[in-house]
Amino acid sequence: MSKVTLVTGGARSGKSRFAERLAEGFGPLRGYLATGYAGDGEMAERISRHRARRGDDWHTIEEPLELAEAVNGNDGRFSVLLIDCVTLWLSNLLFRENGGPAEALREVEKFTGTFGKLKTPMIIVTNEVGMGIVPEHPLARTFRDLAGEANELIAAKADEVYVTISGLPLKLKG
Amino acid sequence: MSKVTLVTGGARSGKSRFAERLAEGFGPLRGYLATGYAGDGEMAERISRHRARRGDDWHTIEEPLELAEAVNGNDGRFSVLLIDCVTLWLSNLLFRENGGPAEALREVEKFTGTFGKLKTPMIIVTNEVGMGIVPEHPLARTFRDLAGEANELIAAKADEVYVTISGLPLKLKG
Amino acid sequence: MSKVTLVTGGARSGKSRFAERLAEGFGPLRGYLATGYAGDGEMAERISRHRARRGDDWHTIEEPLELAEAVNGNDGRFSVLLIDCVTLWLSNLLFRENGGPAEALREVEKFTGTFGKLKTPMIIVTNEVGMGIVPEHPLARTFRDLAGEANELIAAKADEVYVTISGLPLKLKG
Repeated sequence: MSKVTLVTGGARSGKSRFAERLAEGFGPLRGYLATGYAGDGEMAERISRHRARRGDDWHTIEEPLELAEAVNGNDGRFSVLLIDCVTLWLSNLLFRENGGPAEALREVEKFTGTFGKLKTPMIIVTNEVGMGIVPEHPLARTFRDLAGEANELIAAKADEVYVTISGLPLKLKG
Repeated sequence: MSKVTLVTGGARSGKSRFAERLAEGFGPLRGYLATGYAGDGEMAERISRHRARRGDDWHTIEEPLELAEAVNGNDGRFSVLLIDCVTLWLSNLLFRENGGPAEALREVEKFTGTFGKLKTPMIIVTNEVGMGIVPEHPLARTFRDLAGEANELIAAKADEVYVTISGLPLKLKG
Repeated sequence: MSKVTLVTGGARSGKSRFAERLAEGFGPLRGYLATGYAGDGEMAERISRHRARRGDDWHTIEEPLELAEAVNGNDGRFSVLLIDCVTLWLSNLLFRENGGPAEALREVEKFTGTFGKLKTPMIIVTNEVGMGIVPEHPLARTFRDLAGEANELIAAKADEVYVTISGLPLKLKG
């Protein structure tokens, strides 16, 4: 049974860098599954920054929506699969046509349903978004609640969980 | 001397669920003190969701303002008293007529003044709201500062303190 | 080699109070380096509140911009130097004429470049600002990203790092 590791943390808290360091413990070829739409300017810049930081023994897959399918379809191809990140994936699910929190949570459950059935170990990056003041916009509250519930579902099924604060990892589980 | 436990965490971080699991360690009849106004639509939905999750061996009290009085008045009735949550209580105190942060902090001190004098163990749920960007509205800053100060006062007098992150508890004290 | 300690935490999480308690472990004369502009009303009130809390064996320096220079220029004067706080300093750097995130990060690197070369131990206070929902304003996102990167750079070079939650310190490093 392959191990699932969740790395959570605030914005620019070093969570992706820590996840990449964990992945360096596995041999090439490592898979990097990016969930963001590269179309967005900030996102394209972020993906290219991440790509520059990672070495050549990584292969990048882009999948903004069908995460369970992408994980199953690529199982066995890589020494490890790093998924970056859950929060972007959730926002893609929430804001697509006919999307919504209930449907997004069903996708989360499909995703956690793959845990323990895969050959490839996974390292999953997510964000803490619930420790600020209550957002004014109902949609931001919906997103915050969805992200919190998804993190709890994934953490409950993960083998190891870390939170990064100021770049430093703190183990919460495993 | 009965034990006081504080559970803090972000929105949808699993803090209420963890507090309820701690309370399940006590026998029936458990008390649930809800501080939110059920009049609000989101709140009514939240209370009914919480109620559905808890079993029949719980008794619910609603008290949005006079928390010290409610705790004293119900002492000895229950095996344990779960208070959910401090943050809603503070917002009720802050936004009522003639309310304000100084008066709210006096109520917090009245509340912590009951600790160590009660027969019933208490489990108190609160929120972390100070780890986002500085809010633009002065009132949101006032609320954030009040919540931070109240959490610090309560944590200082509590016997055990936990923070939940992605549904996982981390012990901070006790 | 003198020790560098970083204390991070949310708003009103007790980080300054904890940093002051750490500084009390050193003899007088202690230095307090305030990075905020006293001109601002909220800031003047905050500085005077902090000043009232600290005793007479403290000496206050105000330096909103040239932190590395102030640290070098005052080296050896005090038993310990408490810097409060990084986040205000970063906002001064970001919002000054011709300021920006790249220039601010260069100042952070100048500042961390002093670590390990000083006679005076330093205790540095900073804020967690990245655990809320993504801010709407691009400038707020820029600030949040800058604060996260600065915290990571400082934490990586500090000897000890703590995060305070509800007034309680949790050691992350050292």
